Amino acid sequence: MEFLKGHGTENDFVVLPDLDGTLDLTAARVRALCDRNRGLGADGVLRVVKGSVVLDTETEDARRRLADVDPDGWFMDYRNADGSIAEMCGNGLRLFAAYLVDAGLAEAGEFVVGTRSGPKPVRTHEDGSVTLHMGPARVFGRSQATVSGEAYPGVAIDVGNPHLACLIDGDPTDLDLTVPPGHDPVLFPHGVNVELFRRKGPDAIQMRVHERGVGETRSCGTGTVAAVAALLHLVDEPTGTSYVDVLGGRVRVEITEDGSTLTGPAVLVARGQLDRRWWESAS
Amino acid sequence: MEFLKGHGTENDFVVLPDLDGTLDLTAARVRALCDRNRGLGADGVLRVVKGSVVLDTETEDARRRLADVDPDGWFMDYRNADGSIAEMCGNGLRLFAAYLVDAGLAEAGEFVVGTRSGPKPVRTHEDGSVTLHMGPARVFGRSQATVSGEAYPGVAIDVGNPHLACLIDGDPTDLDLTVPPGHDPVLFPHGVNVELFRRKGPDAIQMRVHERGVGETRSCGTGTVAAVAALLHLVDEPTGTSYVDVLGGRVRVEITEDGSTLTGPAVLVARGQLDRRWWESAS
Repeated sequence: MEFLKGHGTENDFVVLPDLDGTLDLTAARVRALCDRNRGLGADGVLRVVKGSVVLDTETEDARRRLADVDPDGWFMDYRNADGSIAEMCGNGLRLFAAYLVDAGLAEAGEFVVGTRSGPKPVRTHEDGSVTLHMGPARVFGRSQATVSGEAYPGVAIDVGNPHLACLIDGDPTDLDLTVPPGHDPVLFPHGVNVELFRRKGPDAIQMRVHERGVGETRSCGTGTVAAVAALLHLVDEPTGTSYVDVLGGRVRVEITEDGSTLTGPAVLVARGQLDRRWWESAS
Repeated sequence: MEFLKGHGTENDFVVLPDLDGTLDLTAARVRALCDRNRGLGADGVLRVVKGSVVLDTETEDARRRLADVDPDGWFMDYRNADGSIAEMCGNGLRLFAAYLVDAGLAEAGEFVVGTRSGPKPVRTHEDGSVTLHMGPARVFGRSQATVSGEAYPGVAIDVGNPHLACLIDGDPTDLDLTVPPGHDPVLFPHGVNVELFRRKGPDAIQMRVHERGVGETRSCGTGTVAAVAALLHLVDEPTGTSYVDVLGGRVRVEITEDGSTLTGPAVLVARGQLDRRWWESAS
């Protein structure tokens, strides 16, 4: 069993090439791989497989939704560390694209990767970074987040998931995000991801993010898009670009008329083979 | 750069073969390797090198202390995850021995590994486990540990480092070890490792351990020796053996007239190569 380990803004993954689609990737094996002491350790597993292999196992409904996915193209079969299936992961997709180029399975530049939320166009760059299309960021109100008893006004933004992005005066480093920020349950009935950011110069912001149901994370792709969209909204600009410094590194967000892109690093750390005995005992 | 990843009772390590002694293993590289998101992730790094390579860099004093280490034999150059040097690590030594056999650098069975605390005889077994000599366990008093306001009587034992091993009536699983157990600062002026264990049958105990300065850990080699020595002391037996179940797995401890041995698993998880660009950027 070959593997590759890498990360995107410190969200880390084990890539498992399964080029002929024969791998028996059980939930138990995903959990063993992601275990940080007993296995390799990762936030998730990215199985590299032809689209047809995944499509064949999906329901009639899912196959209809994924009609645009190329059955002969490479597909990112994403699994969470607990063994469950997730539709998409931006940080993972950057690493996946970098792997395809590194392994000679795709040519550097623009190409499309199949995912459970549809085909995703990506663009790889010479410096190792990768650009993803993130869809539109839609402002739907004003609200406020409460951190350590203090209220921070922010902009409510939908990037496929709900965000409350707050431009603050102080240093985000000083905030205590060990407790979920308070929010308006009427505007955000299913919870909200909260970004707290400040300007760091003419073309950069510094941000921390609390993801609903998770806690503070080292990076959140849709969160960086929401923060830049909020900043543009506050200065009344329809489009623009900004670097975003998160705990896990730096990304670049562009807000366009009809969508957004996120460009960020994809770092290959190591390649190798899983020990056969270990892999067999992990099933 | 070749590497191997593995663990002993869930204490995990990156093994770096440096057979010709040319590797520039800076503290920054150790920290990068051990980083669980940006690197491979591990509790420590085990560099595989000839004794002479390490001895040559030691002080006159250290070279005198290590006079018994074979300069032509394999030496475990152990580094903590923070980049600092440590003398010895039992869980690491088991993995190191298993690696030497796996790589054809030592013949299965009994051999000696050099370490910064002297030459260590080891014995590898067919089931993948490895036996280490742990030195004598010396009883030096009775005392008690306080957990969640409750006092647990225990035996004070020196296994090179100080332990307070407490045989308890209840289930160790129920204890809250998030706070360091209270102890007698007169008997243990430099702190103490606390073991809380119960009998699980005629030849097994179940144990949890709180290591001074660290917190609860998934395994502690000297702690398992202390617990078995305490049990034998309480039933007035000079020698004996017992399995010990810790959170990270099962080990076997033998207490003899003049010392002790610990036999436990060594699990090879994966082998591979570090990405050259990553390795160079990690220096």
